[in-house]
Amino acid sequence: MAERPVDRPVRLTDFKLHEAPVPEPKAGEFVIRVIYASLAPVMRFYMLDGAGIEKPLEIGEVMRGRGVGQVIASRNPNFKDGDIVQGKMGWQEYAVSDGSPYWMMYKVHQRIVPVSTALGVLGVTGFTAYFGLFDIGKPKPGETVLVSGAAGGVGSSVGQLAKIIGCRTVGIAGTAEKCSLLTEKLGYDAAINYKTEDVSARIGVLCGAGVDVFFDNVGGPILDAALAHINKYARVVACGGISQYIAGSTEPYPLRNAYKIGRLNALLQGFLIYDYEPRFVEAERAMAAWVKDGKLTYQEDVLDGIERMPEALIRLYAGENKGKQLVRISPDPF
Amino acid sequence: MAERPVDRPVRLTDFKLHEAPVPEPKAGEFVIRVIYASLAPVMRFYMLDGAGIEKPLEIGEVMRGRGVGQVIASRNPNFKDGDIVQGKMGWQEYAVSDGSPYWMMYKVHQRIVPVSTALGVLGVTGFTAYFGLFDIGKPKPGETVLVSGAAGGVGSSVGQLAKIIGCRTVGIAGTAEKCSLLTEKLGYDAAINYKTEDVSARIGVLCGAGVDVFFDNVGGPILDAALAHINKYARVVACGGISQYIAGSTEPYPLRNAYKIGRLNALLQGFLIYDYEPRFVEAERAMAAWVKDGKLTYQEDVLDGIERMPEALIRLYAGENKGKQLVRISPDPF
Repeated sequence: MAERPVDRPVRLTDFKLHEAPVPEPKAGEFVIRVIYASLAPVMRFYMLDGAGIEKPLEIGEVMRGRGVGQVIASRNPNFKDGDIVQGKMGWQEYAVSDGSPYWMMYKVHQRIVPVSTALGVLGVTGFTAYFGLFDIGKPKPGETVLVSGAAGGVGSSVGQLAKIIGCRTVGIAGTAEKCSLLTEKLGYDAAINYKTEDVSARIGVLCGAGVDVFFDNVGGPILDAALAHINKYARVVACGGISQYIAGSTEPYPLRNAYKIGRLNALLQGFLIYDYEPRFVEAERAMAAWVKDGKLTYQEDVLDGIERMPEALIRLYAGENKGKQLVRISPDPF
Repeated sequence: MAERPVDRPVRLTDFKLHEAPVPEPKAGEFVIRVIYASLAPVMRFYMLDGAGIEKPLEIGEVMRGRGVGQVIASRNPNFKDGDIVQGKMGWQEYAVSDGSPYWMMYKVHQRIVPVSTALGVLGVTGFTAYFGLFDIGKPKPGETVLVSGAAGGVGSSVGQLAKIIGCRTVGIAGTAEKCSLLTEKLGYDAAINYKTEDVSARIGVLCGAGVDVFFDNVGGPILDAALAHINKYARVVACGGISQYIAGSTEPYPLRNAYKIGRLNALLQGFLIYDYEPRFVEAERAMAAWVKDGKLTYQEDVLDGIERMPEALIRLYAGENKGKQLVRISPDPF
């Protein structure tokens, strides 16, 4: 990082390419050759203030970010040469880690689809869809599954997973283009544009038998609209509250229909995806097979070369990416 | 029932005692000698309109109500002479049933405490406390359990059950007398009078480490106040919404803090106690042992003789009963 983007968008000149020798691992460490790097909206906040999670980056530090790569030199018994891992690798061609929790290093076990998927559909994003839907939502064949933020990273998998097990799926998104994507590419039976339609009325029409599972990625008024249509024993997966995050210091949106959870013997539950870490391998195995069979699709937008990382981030903020924004740092060995 | 109490309270003269021979069971039926009859606030609605569940009583019909009794003559293979059962027995000394689901006949297995408990702490009311707390609330020793409607039939057991497993317990009730009962008889560590105290502020003080389990019997503003103080991974048991029932056709109370369920990886869940029917015997066994050991206390207010049923009901509506209002119809054989 060369400059801090205070009170302005990120620019190409906020970053500078720096060359250094490939590091040698110390005792307990291992060196990873990065294959793909992930771009995420949170990155500007890493540059500004650490996103409230970590300490802010200093000028001259390696930019933070997740990646997937291969271990090429290891002095750590848990990570062997040749292992594929995903985790915090930063914007660099070779990363060093000691495998402690800070690095969030998870092994990639599957070898049947491209390893880039470890940063999306077969990574924490996809696992969030998998465990939120199957462990909390517990959909049964024939039930109606409603999803908000349905075109997003999590939501685009949720609809397909629900479809795989035989549910009727309805997605909510914010543009006509995303709504088309839902029904044409992501297998949703129907889509609702929350910016142009009366969400509650449309849920009533499109979920005629009521909502059995609501996978909520947004919170606020859309959550309240969905709660108005839940069935007895419905499960509401409280995965995200984007609208609440944006609201910031303002009052939280008052939910008029939350009382229905108790009245209808229903459930509203949040979860922390990292609590499912011991079962990530189960999700990876199941979802890799579905990806291979073409039942679970995903979209990636890949640029080539570490020098294009700043461009890829700016592209993400401009909304020009079609699917998960990645940069290929070195050739995929599989 | 001799008269229908339309637009007025229930009177003694709304009922008339009628004598008839003890019935003989037809094929598939069994006859029960009623031991205790239960009085419940819903009874006036049985007289008016069936309480929205059953068809309204006709003038001259046997008044509806639950009881516990002993089978004295059976032509039903599932209910044998000598069995103790609880279920819909009506206001009568001898009841006939075919054991079909309508009658909600459950066998009483325990013989270590009085069978009157089958209408309270060892009946559906107590089982609601047991399964709501242990299966949904899942309290761990040392956690803080907050209970609304804490002096009621369900709430008075919840606090004691939580205490048995080593939780800190705080109860919310509506009178100073009930609050004294909570801390002096029902083992609550602290009590909040929602009519005279700022509920949210008091929860903050009395649940200094936050609320891990909230067992909610009332809903509305008290639920919202409790949600403001829940911890990460908290469990909120949505057992009742009395304040919502009273509100009737008015707008439901908007919950400003329900978004915390998702944010804090928490859970809000309702349940139907009859879904736990296959496990009633587990709850009965555990709770009977605690009653016998003096760890689980209960209060009953017992009048004697079927002719006092109208008086007992009026007593209930006047709030003069101390604990569960019952009438002993015949001597307890144990």
